[in-house]
Amino acid sequence: MFEFRLERIIGAARAGTLALPHGEVRTPAFMPVGTYGVVRGLSPADVRRTGAQIVLGNTYHLHLRPGEEVVRTMGGLNRFTTWDRPMLTDSGGFQVFSLEGLRRISENGVEFQSHVDGSFRILTPERAIEIQRTLGADIAMAFDHVVPGQAPHALALEGMERTLRWLDRCRLRHEELAVETQTLWPIIQGGTHDELRMQSLEGTLERGPWTGIAIGGLSVGESKPVMHRVLEQLGPALPRDIPRYLMGVGFPADLLEGITRGIDLFDCVAATRNGRHGTAWLPAGRVNVRGAALTGSREPLDPECDCETCTTFPRGYLRHLFVVEDMLGMRLVSIHNIRFLVRLGEQARARILDGTFDGWSRDWLRRHYARAS
Amino acid sequence: MFEFRLERIIGAARAGTLALPHGEVRTPAFMPVGTYGVVRGLSPADVRRTGAQIVLGNTYHLHLRPGEEVVRTMGGLNRFTTWDRPMLTDSGGFQVFSLEGLRRISENGVEFQSHVDGSFRILTPERAIEIQRTLGADIAMAFDHVVPGQAPHALALEGMERTLRWLDRCRLRHEELAVETQTLWPIIQGGTHDELRMQSLEGTLERGPWTGIAIGGLSVGESKPVMHRVLEQLGPALPRDIPRYLMGVGFPADLLEGITRGIDLFDCVAATRNGRHGTAWLPAGRVNVRGAALTGSREPLDPECDCETCTTFPRGYLRHLFVVEDMLGMRLVSIHNIRFLVRLGEQARARILDGTFDGWSRDWLRRHYARAS
Repeated sequence: MFEFRLERIIGAARAGTLALPHGEVRTPAFMPVGTYGVVRGLSPADVRRTGAQIVLGNTYHLHLRPGEEVVRTMGGLNRFTTWDRPMLTDSGGFQVFSLEGLRRISENGVEFQSHVDGSFRILTPERAIEIQRTLGADIAMAFDHVVPGQAPHALALEGMERTLRWLDRCRLRHEELAVETQTLWPIIQGGTHDELRMQSLEGTLERGPWTGIAIGGLSVGESKPVMHRVLEQLGPALPRDIPRYLMGVGFPADLLEGITRGIDLFDCVAATRNGRHGTAWLPAGRVNVRGAALTGSREPLDPECDCETCTTFPRGYLRHLFVVEDMLGMRLVSIHNIRFLVRLGEQARARILDGTFDGWSRDWLRRHYARAS
Repeated sequence: MFEFRLERIIGAARAGTLALPHGEVRTPAFMPVGTYGVVRGLSPADVRRTGAQIVLGNTYHLHLRPGEEVVRTMGGLNRFTTWDRPMLTDSGGFQVFSLEGLRRISENGVEFQSHVDGSFRILTPERAIEIQRTLGADIAMAFDHVVPGQAPHALALEGMERTLRWLDRCRLRHEELAVETQTLWPIIQGGTHDELRMQSLEGTLERGPWTGIAIGGLSVGESKPVMHRVLEQLGPALPRDIPRYLMGVGFPADLLEGITRGIDLFDCVAATRNGRHGTAWLPAGRVNVRGAALTGSREPLDPECDCETCTTFPRGYLRHLFVVEDMLGMRLVSIHNIRFLVRLGEQARARILDGTFDGWSRDWLRRHYARAS
């Protein structure tokens, strides 16, 4: 269990298969975000049809609503949501550190005010692990101290060192709970400071072994070249034989940029958030589905796409759904955007396995950036 | 085409099959309402899975958005929406007469102000037919003068007589357009005044033959016993060999009460409107899906139901969806409520065909009213 079988490497790009209690995940792969145990507006069947192999649940949100004890009563996250494939829960770290003004950080943990009812709560490394244990996902994440993308050295150092100390407490609590069907992954921090990132990685590996490793604190305000530099620096030092998860990334190009630099797993809310706002991702760039240009069009949204939306509905109908504010529109564009990222992972995997990844990804990115500029 | 095959009659209740260009409709049957060419929040596949055989589209709404010419450009209502089974469009009469203060009635038609952009428009019998011709549903409805359920005799008389004069104009325009794939059904008016209802029916039949006949102006404020009395009075005088459609009705009990009095087709927005508000229809009465009592429940919403929602999701998850305001909740309860009415039609049909309808419907209604009181 939790074994990662590396199948091929082209440059830094990797294709592998991760065995989890609820099934296998073929990488590289995009994980849709199911904030409250549901990918916004989609049924598990909708998500399954996108080809998604694993869904992320947000510990912070699920802790507040419905509360982990309710999820336990219902048999855990998979039974609660009826999603029967692998799941990963984040630790809540990213969310509570984002609650500017509503949280107080100490060595013990983070005291915060619920955005739902204003109640005061505390999340510690131990609590984050206990809650995730109760939720019961295949993969639990360590509770980390997240700093903004532009954080100065001193703050990035503080967050990085605290993340390592908290990792010890997470690991201890996770071992005490002795959960055979759940593994714990650590998170590399250190902001955009190269030596802090390396220290974080070294400190994390000293505390290993791990079945997977995550890179946190990226895509939080820093520029893309800086994110790429951090990935390139970390890449060669990361263990080869476990999956690497780049948290909170990405947009379509981010996925390929990450895969090119050796990342195996991604998650991001952009696919569904954009979908709800009527922004669809196409190979030729974004399209605003509300746009008057789509009126009366019988063409599919993306003629190259095999998703439920593109193989069923004409563009003109999708536009109409947004104009009359029918929630079906939000669902259908979310489905397309998720499929777009899932398929990008599938395509990258196929290209890695058949050895044509380098040229294909270079062409894809060149076309993408040409259109975006 | 448009042939109605009557299969069995038990008392006044009837089982039949209506042949339409896009397929057969086995009656009695409930038609979900697809206001803008979509059943709110549901995909055609969702609707298909409820067992619905025919969907109603609102001419008033589709005329305003996207406009019938856009629908024509896209190949008609079926291609536009990708719903490939029968459809019926209402005439817009009910909607424009409901626009209190925003409409002016004359013999020519109704001038009204669009609720979308405030533009002034006019709907006449001819325009209502032309728009419906352009939309291209299997069944078009005559443009009628609808009066409130409590309308006094003079107003009900005026509306009833005008509806007959307008029926001549509708019929003429429909014949001029010579649409082989669309039939026109007239609407009986006359409020709650027995002799006006009979005059309306006689005047309508004089203008026949028709392939179906509708009863309008009910469930608009009058009491249930009054509605039942109107149906009982009209029933024996209605032609046996064409389907009878009770417009804008109903709730679960209304369906059985109508079937018992010889009605074959129904439509109503209550199933989806209730669904979006989290009210689910169960054999044991309504349940508020937001209710705290459902927290943590692993039971299905309705253990007797075979819909996608009840066979997949636990109650506790449905409640959670409403608490966190995820639109999936609205979809799932709408699906259940539609299936509830569609299944009630299927059950009634089976009981009529096997001769056990009387006892079954009496028991069903007795249990239903006992729980509701």
